[in-house]
Amino acid sequence: MIKNKVTLNFIQKYTPILNDFLKTSLPTSITNSQLSASMQYSVFAGGKRLRPLLLLAMVKTTETKVNLNTVQVAASLELLHTYSLIHDDLPAMDNDDLRRGVPTNHKKYGEALAILAGDGLLTLAFEWLATTKYNSQITSQLTQALAHAAGPAGMVAGQASDVLGEKEQLTFEQLKKLHKQKTGALITYTAEAAGIITNSDSETQKNLKMFAENFGLAFQIFDDLEDVLGTEKMMGKAVHKDAGEHKNTYPGIRGLAQTKRDLIQCVSNCQSALIKLQDSGVSIELLQGFLEYFQLNEEEK
Amino acid sequence: MIKNKVTLNFIQKYTPILNDFLKTSLPTSITNSQLSASMQYSVFAGGKRLRPLLLLAMVKTTETKVNLNTVQVAASLELLHTYSLIHDDLPAMDNDDLRRGVPTNHKKYGEALAILAGDGLLTLAFEWLATTKYNSQITSQLTQALAHAAGPAGMVAGQASDVLGEKEQLTFEQLKKLHKQKTGALITYTAEAAGIITNSDSETQKNLKMFAENFGLAFQIFDDLEDVLGTEKMMGKAVHKDAGEHKNTYPGIRGLAQTKRDLIQCVSNCQSALIKLQDSGVSIELLQGFLEYFQLNEEEK
Repeated sequence: MIKNKVTLNFIQKYTPILNDFLKTSLPTSITNSQLSASMQYSVFAGGKRLRPLLLLAMVKTTETKVNLNTVQVAASLELLHTYSLIHDDLPAMDNDDLRRGVPTNHKKYGEALAILAGDGLLTLAFEWLATTKYNSQITSQLTQALAHAAGPAGMVAGQASDVLGEKEQLTFEQLKKLHKQKTGALITYTAEAAGIITNSDSETQKNLKMFAENFGLAFQIFDDLEDVLGTEKMMGKAVHKDAGEHKNTYPGIRGLAQTKRDLIQCVSNCQSALIKLQDSGVSIELLQGFLEYFQLNEEEK
Repeated sequence: MIKNKVTLNFIQKYTPILNDFLKTSLPTSITNSQLSASMQYSVFAGGKRLRPLLLLAMVKTTETKVNLNTVQVAASLELLHTYSLIHDDLPAMDNDDLRRGVPTNHKKYGEALAILAGDGLLTLAFEWLATTKYNSQITSQLTQALAHAAGPAGMVAGQASDVLGEKEQLTFEQLKKLHKQKTGALITYTAEAAGIITNSDSETQKNLKMFAENFGLAFQIFDDLEDVLGTEKMMGKAVHKDAGEHKNTYPGIRGLAQTKRDLIQCVSNCQSALIKLQDSGVSIELLQGFLEYFQLNEEEK
């Protein structure tokens, strides 16, 4: 739970701004009413907006004003993230009935519309990226970075490894690579996008990226841990599911105690990146607050 | 069958150039070997490369040299087209076992990899668009145009209308709109892309677009006709399938004779657009030759 006031204020300010942008812009981008309902259903199914908020926080941290263009870039990332959830949940993939406490897209709208809703969100993400008022150099760099992170050398490759790996036991190195692609690539993109938008020097970009890479890994480890330690009610989705399906997870490969140490190490790496950013005169409290997300509660420790 | 020598020479020159580009660039863009096999399988399953060839022909017609950047833009369109075929063939959509005479992607690689192969090709199309050496203004205009044509106000909306419309009889106007989105949007994009790349004046762009829009509609009508008139062996896919599933088609709604007249009208509109282009001093034989694609053989007339 994030309690840091700077971070909490930031989240409370920008979550509604992101949601308003999505609510205003999404319906006008879709010409088929049932497709529109299906796409909007998943975008507004209670996501925390973590990825777009991180992107905005990194832009803010490098002391660039967050404006409507930045919000549009962040919102396009949320579209892309939502597409990945819809397709991951499909019967041929993870076959999940529940997501964030409500029926998954294909359970509500059927498989055909769920596939198309994902396709539509993925494509629209690139349209939104290409139609901000940023100059065209920023636009094409962002397009390149997002496509690379989300594509067959990034997120899609990670999802393929995950689906195909279900039948065999991965090594720890293979699992780390899988997570780096499947979850990590989009979170690392938040740092790349912030670096492109703010035109940061290479040292700042490197440190933002180190922060984001470790944040992404921590995020996946934390998710694996919650799956073991959490309850279904808290999570809004089926828990203990990964283990039941012999899915490769951190606790499954590393054991519970080592997984907790792995998480602490990732958070510590994030802190180191922030200290380096601070050394270059940047206020890091906003990003530091996001690390509270990974605190286990007393029973879980 | 295209017999025009200018057009035939062009097709025979650029088809292997496109295929070489795809063969060289595709494997290096994918990090998971099974995903790579699945993506390459459909890209090299015998497509005619009609859309990328049209794009190159329009660039050539406006007297701009076709270079490696143009080929990359054209190849990215082929990736995007291939993704749409893979997803359209899925069990939840058209449920096709055969495409171009060989098993569809999900029949060969399973549904999960087929969905991911489509996702990967769609995303990679945007990466290829964003990494040509064209200036960033061209790049971001191309991204915008492709995303709009392929997205939830274009191709994806058309596919949704098609899937959802299977249960009800569409009116002729609804069917025309469906085709305009599902097949037409990507073909119209070939004109938009050529206009952007060649920086053509607005009159030229308008005429290229009129040609492409009518070409796209003719293409769909011709496909519907072949489905009724063709044989399975000739088509490399199941024929008489649309009618069997009560799918809305031109022959189903307009009758066979009127459908043939509709096709002739579309081709005639293409000719009119070409005459206007010719009036502005452009050689139109190359594009004119592409219209021979729509000639019915003697038994079909």
